Amino acid sequence: MTPAEFRHTTRTNTFQSPTAGLCPGFAQANLIVLPKKDAYDFLLFALRNPKPIPLLEVSEMGSRQLNKLGLDTDIASDFPKYRIYRDGVLASEYLDVEDYWRDDLVSFLIGCSFSFEDMLMDAGIEIRHITEKVNVPMFNTNILLNPAGKFKGNMVVSMRPIKGEQIPEAVRVTNRVPGVHGAPIQIGDPAAIGITDLMHPDFGDAVTIKEGEIPVFWACGVTPQAAVMATKPDFAITHAPGHMLITDLPNKELIV
Amino acid sequence: MTPAEFRHTTRTNTFQSPTAGLCPGFAQANLIVLPKKDAYDFLLFALRNPKPIPLLEVSEMGSRQLNKLGLDTDIASDFPKYRIYRDGVLASEYLDVEDYWRDDLVSFLIGCSFSFEDMLMDAGIEIRHITEKVNVPMFNTNILLNPAGKFKGNMVVSMRPIKGEQIPEAVRVTNRVPGVHGAPIQIGDPAAIGITDLMHPDFGDAVTIKEGEIPVFWACGVTPQAAVMATKPDFAITHAPGHMLITDLPNKELIV
Repeated sequence: MTPAEFRHTTRTNTFQSPTAGLCPGFAQANLIVLPKKDAYDFLLFALRNPKPIPLLEVSEMGSRQLNKLGLDTDIASDFPKYRIYRDGVLASEYLDVEDYWRDDLVSFLIGCSFSFEDMLMDAGIEIRHITEKVNVPMFNTNILLNPAGKFKGNMVVSMRPIKGEQIPEAVRVTNRVPGVHGAPIQIGDPAAIGITDLMHPDFGDAVTIKEGEIPVFWACGVTPQAAVMATKPDFAITHAPGHMLITDLPNKELIV
Repeated sequence: MTPAEFRHTTRTNTFQSPTAGLCPGFAQANLIVLPKKDAYDFLLFALRNPKPIPLLEVSEMGSRQLNKLGLDTDIASDFPKYRIYRDGVLASEYLDVEDYWRDDLVSFLIGCSFSFEDMLMDAGIEIRHITEKVNVPMFNTNILLNPAGKFKGNMVVSMRPIKGEQIPEAVRVTNRVPGVHGAPIQIGDPAAIGITDLMHPDFGDAVTIKEGEIPVFWACGVTPQAAVMATKPDFAITHAPGHMLITDLPNKELIV
């Protein structure tokens, strides 16, 4: 299925699940949508925190369309699942957010680590949550973000268990794609970043960690949702963790 | 002289000249200062045009201080020379802009190709405007920028004549530093980007082009000034072309 064909299946709500492993070779994107009055602070926040919030595209105010990531895209319906936060509190999840769209909304599309998973698999590295057909495990951390205007918060990370001898290659592969979070931010010491229980992720699902495997942590595009909870803007739309937009951007164009 | 010592000489207006070749090893920065009401559009404009407008730091509104580029910095006096544009028209040049500072101003510090000139010289490549002790030649081009909100315009480029056999090394060296404009955008064909006379630059000074040398063009941090002239915001402060801030940021930290 091409990315455009896949987006049509989400647009009609026939696909409502996490997107890891789908449309290999094409970049996936996280979402945060904010009123224009909060857009400058968030844009600066992203610029000051490029590891967790690497911007792939910013929409025109009010528009549900994109230019760079896929011309045939409806931001309000082409993610499998959305969340709406009011005053920093998760209000509900939705399969589309057309009824909540407003002329003053600006959409920020953010790089996603799902984009490099097929690069890792090509390098012979198993991606456990794809094997186990669950959502990637994601964790809140004690890593403070650089604040900007009203926005502040802590980094969210995704975790993949990897054999020690494969970790150098995992670092090398992901270091080449800073636009989708780049190299890991921590390897092997979850306690050092405030994670107490790898079997109870804050977002997504737990995965098996086998003997000889080390937990490897990458900055995660759910970070803006943690920032929304900490900052409490009056209104924000995001994707549901793991439920991404699949874009027309080939992953190989993200390699620097 | 350290960057901080150099900034003190500009702060007291004892130094008023172009900064090419000064404080080797440390990044230099271009400047544009805009009222907050234009800051979102400009920040998005920079994001959409990273070759000519690579952001090194964005100040807090109203502040004349920086964090990342040098704690002991006064944005309003540490550049050797400034320009003020009103409604897109150059009003005048100033040795400092303290008298024009306002609480609603936001400063954008932008990477400068002077930062990679000592890397080029280390690679055995002569930098002609340094040899001839003049300002680097800069040219308007026909290359349209990606617009954002009210901001639009054409790219400005700097030009260095380089021997054909040294150009591959010049590309290799500068490609590693995208934060200060990265690799050249044109080599050898000024007419293709709308430049008709290499001996009459739009900014800076002409330099000698010797037999066997090819003009090499890099995106230039004067581009925001061309955008100001095209966009006509009611107020903007910039550096005078070639008259940069010398920062505490080592150039080697710009290498990716």
